[in-house]
Amino acid sequence: MQTKDITMNLGSGGKEMHNFISSYIVEELKNGILEKLDDAAVMENSNKARIAMTTDSYVVSPVFFDGGDIGRLCVCGTVNDLSTSGAKPYALSLAFILEEGASIETIKIIIDSIKIAAKEADVKIVTGDTKVVEKGKGDKIYINTCGVGFIDNGVNISTHNAVIDDIVMISGPIGNHEVAMMKARGMVTFDINIKSDVSPLNRKIEKLLEKTKQIHVIKDPTRGGLAGALNEICKNSRCGIRIIEENIPVDPEVEAVCNLLGFDPMYLANEGKYVIVCGKEDEIFVKQIFGTEAKVIGTVIRDEKAMVTLQAKSGGIRKLGMLETTQLPRIC
Amino acid sequence: MQTKDITMNLGSGGKEMHNFISSYIVEELKNGILEKLDDAAVMENSNKARIAMTTDSYVVSPVFFDGGDIGRLCVCGTVNDLSTSGAKPYALSLAFILEEGASIETIKIIIDSIKIAAKEADVKIVTGDTKVVEKGKGDKIYINTCGVGFIDNGVNISTHNAVIDDIVMISGPIGNHEVAMMKARGMVTFDINIKSDVSPLNRKIEKLLEKTKQIHVIKDPTRGGLAGALNEICKNSRCGIRIIEENIPVDPEVEAVCNLLGFDPMYLANEGKYVIVCGKEDEIFVKQIFGTEAKVIGTVIRDEKAMVTLQAKSGGIRKLGMLETTQLPRIC
Repeated sequence: MQTKDITMNLGSGGKEMHNFISSYIVEELKNGILEKLDDAAVMENSNKARIAMTTDSYVVSPVFFDGGDIGRLCVCGTVNDLSTSGAKPYALSLAFILEEGASIETIKIIIDSIKIAAKEADVKIVTGDTKVVEKGKGDKIYINTCGVGFIDNGVNISTHNAVIDDIVMISGPIGNHEVAMMKARGMVTFDINIKSDVSPLNRKIEKLLEKTKQIHVIKDPTRGGLAGALNEICKNSRCGIRIIEENIPVDPEVEAVCNLLGFDPMYLANEGKYVIVCGKEDEIFVKQIFGTEAKVIGTVIRDEKAMVTLQAKSGGIRKLGMLETTQLPRIC
Repeated sequence: MQTKDITMNLGSGGKEMHNFISSYIVEELKNGILEKLDDAAVMENSNKARIAMTTDSYVVSPVFFDGGDIGRLCVCGTVNDLSTSGAKPYALSLAFILEEGASIETIKIIIDSIKIAAKEADVKIVTGDTKVVEKGKGDKIYINTCGVGFIDNGVNISTHNAVIDDIVMISGPIGNHEVAMMKARGMVTFDINIKSDVSPLNRKIEKLLEKTKQIHVIKDPTRGGLAGALNEICKNSRCGIRIIEENIPVDPEVEAVCNLLGFDPMYLANEGKYVIVCGKEDEIFVKQIFGTEAKVIGTVIRDEKAMVTLQAKSGGIRKLGMLETTQLPRIC
């Protein structure tokens, strides 16, 4: 490549695009399938009875933040979504929308993050696409990944499957990703050590399902936060959830930022945490996999109104609705 | 919805986003899987031994053009890419990146086109995502679709599989999509009847493969045009292709626009055509499926340099390379 910036030519379908894709994308991410560069990747099918599919576009701004970047995010977000169905990730697609004038050096760093995260998650990038839009019609880089995975027999996990008297667990402290984004945007004017929790959790979920297949719900509290995830579970499973505020793990620094800037950690996005709903007898397996950070935070109850209620530290009980307005835009 | 424009709130993960997705997307596209709204869609796996996966982001500008729009394009482009492997499309994902301020009415029309095209292609949208970016960081709407399909035993189609002495066919006249885009951009100042050829071809390919499984290459000449597609085949199959210019079908109006504006139809994008490479004995089946528009345009020859050569109408032979520069940006 002679140029150091993304040009409109890179999206043309011509020589320059082919060179860019070969040199910067395929060379880094190759795995025996991707480099065939056919319009569709062909792979062996699994003998599993069920297949899972998920997609997300990533428009996070800025693209680099403490603990990760858009590249790490686009792999982790998608493998984690596959795991919410109990699927083992099998293949990812990777599609870039690049803005004219974006630095190729930046794109290279992001591709390197994708490579590392895909290795951590043990998943292959098998097919992709690159488009370029004019300066001012994008923001450096948007990425879409789509994931496909297979589900073992006996696994039946969905936000529709919570059962009355189930326990509700969270796999670790909440809010770190969104506070890391606030920091990256210069909103936090004092020193904090908070990093994004962005990480692939699929291998942990695979290990959990080896121990017990009786997990009812796995849900990652991303946009909309823990409160949003719990509300979706209640709505889909037609139940209520009662949460105990003092059991919810929040890092003191996350709490401090929230107090100062007027955010509620219950609505902050996470990129490496799961809400897990299961029978009381399976708590031990969740703790074996996620360690002492994993906490029981509440119970599934009968409630025709499908409400999430919170027993506050102060003692009162209040409704915990879905986010009414944006906290921060473009956090994932 | 109270608002008539896309707001940042629609991407927040909160109530407004859920309402938008339920009312405008799920309500239109529901099929028994999509409306479960889990983070991953779960479907029955097929008993086929091979699975195909493809992705494309669509950034076409303007979003409406004669013969189609970005919605029709995002379904057709992806099912057509699946068919290039001989796969029967099974499920699509659908991810929107919406620009703040875009008209919701516009998005509704696009979703309606998606619905119609998905029905034509007989494919389900099973999962999706919606992100919103600030005004000036996008262009109304970008769409990513990813497709998954399954391949029948005995089918083995790839740009790597052309065989010396195979015939090279095109399923119909070339250049119509890109000329329709020129028209939509006001570049054509006289009256023409050209419409984009954007259409789902997967059912035709399925019928073709019922007649013969001995098709070696199916390739849709989108960005980079027919010349780009042929060059990819030569490179991947390590062969040459000799094309006869006068056999290549081009509508007279496409030819007229090309002459006037200085474009070469060989490099214009198509969204409803296939290059098909097969043995001479299978020509009849391709013509049965695609009709009299389908033409034999050349032959696969031995060539260590993997070149595409064109026997011009004038009699001379010249190399037909890949596109060196952009013809038009953002045509798909």
